[in-house]
Amino acid sequence: MTITREEAEELDAADPLARLRTEFDLPEGVIYLDGNSLGPPPRQALARLEDTASKEWRQGLIRSWNDAGWFDLPKRAGAKIAQLIGAAPSDVIIADSVSVNLFKVAAALIARKRAPIIAIEANEFPTDAYILEGLAGLTGARLTRIAAGAPIPAGLDALVKSLVHYRTGAVADLRAVEKQATVKGASVIWDLSHAVGLLDINLTRDGARYAVGCGYKFLNGGPGAPAFVYVAEKAANVHSQPLSGWMGHVAPFDFAPDYRPARGVARFAAGTPPILSLAALDAALDLFEGVNLADVEAKARALGDLFLKCCAPLGLETISPPVGARRGAQASFIHENGFEIMQALIARGVIGDFRAPNIMRFGFSPLFLSYVQVFDAATALADVVRNETWRAPEYSRRGAVT
Amino acid sequence: MTITREEAEELDAADPLARLRTEFDLPEGVIYLDGNSLGPPPRQALARLEDTASKEWRQGLIRSWNDAGWFDLPKRAGAKIAQLIGAAPSDVIIADSVSVNLFKVAAALIARKRAPIIAIEANEFPTDAYILEGLAGLTGARLTRIAAGAPIPAGLDALVKSLVHYRTGAVADLRAVEKQATVKGASVIWDLSHAVGLLDINLTRDGARYAVGCGYKFLNGGPGAPAFVYVAEKAANVHSQPLSGWMGHVAPFDFAPDYRPARGVARFAAGTPPILSLAALDAALDLFEGVNLADVEAKARALGDLFLKCCAPLGLETISPPVGARRGAQASFIHENGFEIMQALIARGVIGDFRAPNIMRFGFSPLFLSYVQVFDAATALADVVRNETWRAPEYSRRGAVT
Repeated sequence: MTITREEAEELDAADPLARLRTEFDLPEGVIYLDGNSLGPPPRQALARLEDTASKEWRQGLIRSWNDAGWFDLPKRAGAKIAQLIGAAPSDVIIADSVSVNLFKVAAALIARKRAPIIAIEANEFPTDAYILEGLAGLTGARLTRIAAGAPIPAGLDALVKSLVHYRTGAVADLRAVEKQATVKGASVIWDLSHAVGLLDINLTRDGARYAVGCGYKFLNGGPGAPAFVYVAEKAANVHSQPLSGWMGHVAPFDFAPDYRPARGVARFAAGTPPILSLAALDAALDLFEGVNLADVEAKARALGDLFLKCCAPLGLETISPPVGARRGAQASFIHENGFEIMQALIARGVIGDFRAPNIMRFGFSPLFLSYVQVFDAATALADVVRNETWRAPEYSRRGAVT
Repeated sequence: MTITREEAEELDAADPLARLRTEFDLPEGVIYLDGNSLGPPPRQALARLEDTASKEWRQGLIRSWNDAGWFDLPKRAGAKIAQLIGAAPSDVIIADSVSVNLFKVAAALIARKRAPIIAIEANEFPTDAYILEGLAGLTGARLTRIAAGAPIPAGLDALVKSLVHYRTGAVADLRAVEKQATVKGASVIWDLSHAVGLLDINLTRDGARYAVGCGYKFLNGGPGAPAFVYVAEKAANVHSQPLSGWMGHVAPFDFAPDYRPARGVARFAAGTPPILSLAALDAALDLFEGVNLADVEAKARALGDLFLKCCAPLGLETISPPVGARRGAQASFIHENGFEIMQALIARGVIGDFRAPNIMRFGFSPLFLSYVQVFDAATALADVVRNETWRAPEYSRRGAVT
């Protein structure tokens, strides 16, 4: 199953998403396989940021909260994300970080329960587990770590689960998990960070009521872009979340002494959002207008398949789903010299990332990558591994981690 | 005590901070008396934002987390704020919003306590009270509302208090409150939002151990700029806060399954910070380099005194400290037609803000305002009030609130 560069060119020629590549302005000589960690800037995000700073902030000043629509931006951008995950437009809001949003939703789910139990799988994204630890420590809730893929135990109040695993790219069966959770009486909080803007997701159809996710990976919203939170309306109205800042108040400008939550997911907002970062994200989201997410998911898988096929002769150990399987937009390999190999690749303009202690992770964002680029990246990897160019002293580990 | 425009010009000529006015690029024809709500952009903040977006994000991509120092930015910018509040450089970090940071610190102070009590004065900034409500609701802590300026009751675990009151501009006696709190065994969390970058504060000298504050008022960090949190090192190391995201982990890149807090205030970080907004704030903070905060505070008071003197003949009801008193950089008046008056002023280029139900608030940011501007603003207010130009139909309340 050897692939040629010509075949990659043919795939590019037939790519329904090819037009989107011109919406990015990536640096010359770079093949960027780390959009799953930090998406590159769409041109319109940079333009919008400039506009928000120089016109709305500098000229509009305080008036821009109304005149430029800053107040509603968390809802407007949230509605755009809703379209990507099969949610009602009013059920998603932008706020804070994934960690903070996860805390809010998990806290809402255990509020007023006696001896609540929250759970997470053992090898989940660490910060998600840390947040549950923090919540458990504060409230006395019990935190259970369950084995990866194990059945949901009885008695859980909330289970946190990634739709796409950050390390391997494995995709959970959302519908099946929700069905199981319903039987067990547990609520699932989905972490969509590595899935949103990539997979063809339909939370409403598949019965998911709670989700959080990240704005700076496949949504290309900028470094540390604000995160989102989804709570289905019926669920939102019966929950209160403890980070009850003024932006989640039903009437923020009444300056009333007591907190009364807004209806729906709006009550999951807390403090004033970082408008500059939020504006960049909002503009980046427009890139998805008219884009078929089934095409996006299919291209991501095809790019990954291409990479895996090209790399197969190298005999690297992969921890990602195999060719043809549903997969997040990444391929991860284990190599004891993964750090050095990645440094050697970066020196050649192929940027992936390394995760301690030994994982090389290559991401295949479908919006800005071509099949030829992925082919060329695999060729570079083959050269670095076969010729052991990673042994050059400049690639040795110096404690820096990218 | 009538003031003439010539006297205002003389004050400008003698102003040691006059050079800073050229660091801002305010729109023509605007006198901006709302820097206490949203500071305008320093030129260097706009330039830095452009650089962060177009160079660091677009060209550096993921590498900028190391190469452009994004990872350390919350600490580096925090150290700059530390200089403004008399804190050790390593005792301040930028993170999240004021609301979220307040939650963290208050939660840390009640963790592992039996039947804890948290308190806030009755007329404090509403969102601070809302956050304590949320914390109390989640944990079962008791929230007590005490009368403004009343002695600290016995048995409190944490008291939240603004150094400068958002409505009136009254300044609390930080040292006296801390002394009283020490006697009563309570910890005070200071909200410095309306004080930082304005008053000459020395938390270390005056015994304050906990504070939070806002980046977008007198720090001019941009709309919704990230907030800061200060916890004196000895205190930080004995507290754990529940929003224990990866940025507060002692080794974020180990991806260890369990949370272990970083030393000091770094453990009060949670998720990934919004870098674009953070970079603008960091650049804005450089404006304070070499600036004497005693000069800043003195000018703010002098600007306010000038405004109050000019307005005295109008007979408006003020709720702010009188001429000569220590005061935040604002003067607030009560007027049943405050909304319309403010609209009429805004139409003339004098921008202050209105707070429901009847408060007109004028801010006197000392970094970009001249005495002549404040004189002219007072003249405009006199004209609007005396000639009742606010009665024009275009200034009537339409539900919009600025």
